[in-house]
Amino acid sequence: MNALILIKKNTPLNYLDTDMPYPSANQVLVQLKAAAINHRDLWIRKGIYPRIDVYTILGSDGVGLINDQAVIINPNINWGNNPTVPSSDYSILGMPEDGTFAEYIAVGKDRIHPIPTHLSYEQAAALPLGGLTAYRAVFTKGLCKSGDKVLISGIGGSVAQLAFRFAQAAGAKVYVTSSSDEKLEKALQMGAVGGANYTVQHWDKDIWAQTDGFDLIVDSAGGTGFKDLVRLGGLGGRIVVHGNTDGYFAKLNPQTIFSKQLSILGTSMGTDAEFEAMLDFVRQHKIVPVIDSVFALEEHEKAFARMRNKERFGKVVFKIE
Amino acid sequence: MNALILIKKNTPLNYLDTDMPYPSANQVLVQLKAAAINHRDLWIRKGIYPRIDVYTILGSDGVGLINDQAVIINPNINWGNNPTVPSSDYSILGMPEDGTFAEYIAVGKDRIHPIPTHLSYEQAAALPLGGLTAYRAVFTKGLCKSGDKVLISGIGGSVAQLAFRFAQAAGAKVYVTSSSDEKLEKALQMGAVGGANYTVQHWDKDIWAQTDGFDLIVDSAGGTGFKDLVRLGGLGGRIVVHGNTDGYFAKLNPQTIFSKQLSILGTSMGTDAEFEAMLDFVRQHKIVPVIDSVFALEEHEKAFARMRNKERFGKVVFKIE
Repeated sequence: MNALILIKKNTPLNYLDTDMPYPSANQVLVQLKAAAINHRDLWIRKGIYPRIDVYTILGSDGVGLINDQAVIINPNINWGNNPTVPSSDYSILGMPEDGTFAEYIAVGKDRIHPIPTHLSYEQAAALPLGGLTAYRAVFTKGLCKSGDKVLISGIGGSVAQLAFRFAQAAGAKVYVTSSSDEKLEKALQMGAVGGANYTVQHWDKDIWAQTDGFDLIVDSAGGTGFKDLVRLGGLGGRIVVHGNTDGYFAKLNPQTIFSKQLSILGTSMGTDAEFEAMLDFVRQHKIVPVIDSVFALEEHEKAFARMRNKERFGKVVFKIE
Repeated sequence: MNALILIKKNTPLNYLDTDMPYPSANQVLVQLKAAAINHRDLWIRKGIYPRIDVYTILGSDGVGLINDQAVIINPNINWGNNPTVPSSDYSILGMPEDGTFAEYIAVGKDRIHPIPTHLSYEQAAALPLGGLTAYRAVFTKGLCKSGDKVLISGIGGSVAQLAFRFAQAAGAKVYVTSSSDEKLEKALQMGAVGGANYTVQHWDKDIWAQTDGFDLIVDSAGGTGFKDLVRLGGLGGRIVVHGNTDGYFAKLNPQTIFSKQLSILGTSMGTDAEFEAMLDFVRQHKIVPVIDSVFALEEHEKAFARMRNKERFGKVVFKIE
């Protein structure tokens, strides 16, 4: 079969003919139909991720067929029994275990769920990592409920977009930020109550005036802009952090945090129960992930370049035929 | 009656003869026997606190007598019904309402609780603000339970000492930090499992080696040292923040926060229910606050100077006769 394999850090992946995987007794063989790229894959390709083994097939998000049944793969391996944190054996599909950028994959039978029937293969492939991360951020950590004022930063990102859809479906009033007016316009078309371009001076004062602060903020950027998000936290607000694309937080004022009784809550991935709850929520509310672009596995360098393109809005997906 | 009155910001308080308070229908007159100084009083005296009215009697912590009954005063005024945050009418006794640095005070009847019988007036006067803050930090926000590894920073402070006693009584293994070896020694005598002087290089690495990180950290300093506390957070750890004596946090790495699923939880004061639960806990576990020194109201400048003295270990209390 063909697959995208990491042979050397910080070089393009290799599209190679490799051996078909043999499922062990508790595994099943999935013929992959679509996969999706996450930031994790970019970092692994660049060599800046813990525990990288070369000669590994990348890819954490995958959907495919077992005989005629369309399935979606839970990318958690060994989360364990503690809902708060993963076990020491935890890993994510696609490193060090072979991943989904391939024609076939052998995965644990208990990793398999029916694909939500309202979604195409490409749309469903956009769900696993992003949906799990967004679900835990919005509900388990963020305690999002109907009527909450919610701010999702960086609405071009695919986790942000799923967090947006989840909060919206839960009945929250969802605001967004972006550095791009075009992306803000798209988010307003998706039903955002308001949006702000965070490159405009005093954007946080304007949005504070509209909202009196937020009950929940979901952020994956960090960086110097994080202090604005802390300022935008309402009384008792929760700020959920699941990424650091802009690096270290600027200096923060503890007084702002304790006087408003704010919580800053780190989250990453989620439990198997959260994965199933996420799929149920997606089915119930007919959530459709935003697809930015679709590529063949052979076009992997184009796909990775698109992933890094600032104009991207949504998920970069591989169609596997 | 005599009382300590703020007449002008950033000048000494005035010990003056003033009118006896008249209790309204839902109030009761308390003959004060002891009061205690909080950082809040220092800040009000310096003029760096919101909503300062001059010609106000300061003091939030007070115990005294109603006829022959010894009582302790809940310093919350109008917290309201939401346990997460206080209402917009909330204030703390001692500004803008007249406080406890006086011979008498009129307070709401529902602010009055029996004094824990194992405590002297001076010891009980050390409880209200510090005990309420520490109780909410350790239990409501920090979810402290038996067996947890807990770190209390700056063990010279009186909230820190109550947080220490509460966590210890709950069955946690409590470690402490200080800039003073003498204070660390006192904390070890109080039953601390371990301690570290945070002015010593690599102190955090040594304590990490002993503990593998903490389930709960309680901090009132912030400042550049806060990044060490984030590093010392264990998987799923909670870091509760209730002060900022060292100013803004240093830059923090979001990756440390989300990869360990850490929570940074701001807290300030607490509900009436938490105040009652705190008193019950103090009674049940025979908690005794540490008293640093006792002064007469007339000696207020000496008392305030002691409050600012780096050697202070525990509460500075006024005995009122």
